[in-house]
Amino acid sequence: MTDVQAMRPHEEATEAPLPADATLAFIGRIRTPWAAREDCPRQGSLDGPECRIELAPPWDAALDGIERYERIEVLYWLHRSRRDLLRQNPSHGPAARGTFSLRSPVRPNPIGTSLARLVRREGPVLVVRGLDCLDGTPLIDLKPDRCAYTPVAPERDGPKA
Amino acid sequence: MTDVQAMRPHEEATEAPLPADATLAFIGRIRTPWAAREDCPRQGSLDGPECRIELAPPWDAALDGIERYERIEVLYWLHRSRRDLLRQNPSHGPAARGTFSLRSPVRPNPIGTSLARLVRREGPVLVVRGLDCLDGTPLIDLKPDRCAYTPVAPERDGPKA
Repeated sequence: MTDVQAMRPHEEATEAPLPADATLAFIGRIRTPWAAREDCPRQGSLDGPECRIELAPPWDAALDGIERYERIEVLYWLHRSRRDLLRQNPSHGPAARGTFSLRSPVRPNPIGTSLARLVRREGPVLVVRGLDCLDGTPLIDLKPDRCAYTPVAPERDGPKA
Repeated sequence: MTDVQAMRPHEEATEAPLPADATLAFIGRIRTPWAAREDCPRQGSLDGPECRIELAPPWDAALDGIERYERIEVLYWLHRSRRDLLRQNPSHGPAARGTFSLRSPVRPNPIGTSLARLVRREGPVLVVRGLDCLDGTPLIDLKPDRCAYTPVAPERDGPKA
């Protein structure tokens, strides 16, 4: 289900077919308060409303240990986005900009990344704040935030010299 | 080409087949100094060596405007990673941890995300610092860093009251 929006002035699309070089597996769904793209906030806020990240089995078992992080990186598939725009004009301005200079959902591989605050875990569900995506967005990955990620200290085998 | 590494103690894999819910298109390649996984740094440093992100046509045209950002988010496909581990034990410790509590390349959708410093653009190539991936890694997306991302100011239509 892709919404092929109308082109705006100065936008440019490619007609080259997109190759299928790898496949993604949806591992859950994200539940948010936003049912339409125009309702979504432009960028998530860590003080925004609670959203739910629902893991599908067997991937709920891969959550264990995530409770130790306050901030997690969430990757999801922007399933309603067209994929062929090279230049975009989201603000309807006098010129378009290259797709990679924007965080627009329209991109050749429409993957969204957000940094979310983990509020709590309820079994296979993470309750978070900080997302900005549509209700029902497919989940593709969760990682500890790279800033917060400190490796578990190795076990000591004695005092250092 | 997937390197199916041996399982470590306490690790757990799923035998459930991964569905193919969406397809990814590789839009370029990343050139780094690291030819083997054991050579890669554990996490990229913004002072690390220069790496090259080579865009394939037609996606080089989508770079225009990226020069204005010092930091860009780079998404890439960890093409050598197994995808079936629910729990991992990267440090060979006394217990495994859930995959989503690690930034390991082994995950159901092996997508790496890095924050890189843009050094310069050479046509269809971005020279950056801060990556940690294998030479030849397929590129899937580039975005301005969300922290650095400020919308272009709207055109003024007169002095404010």
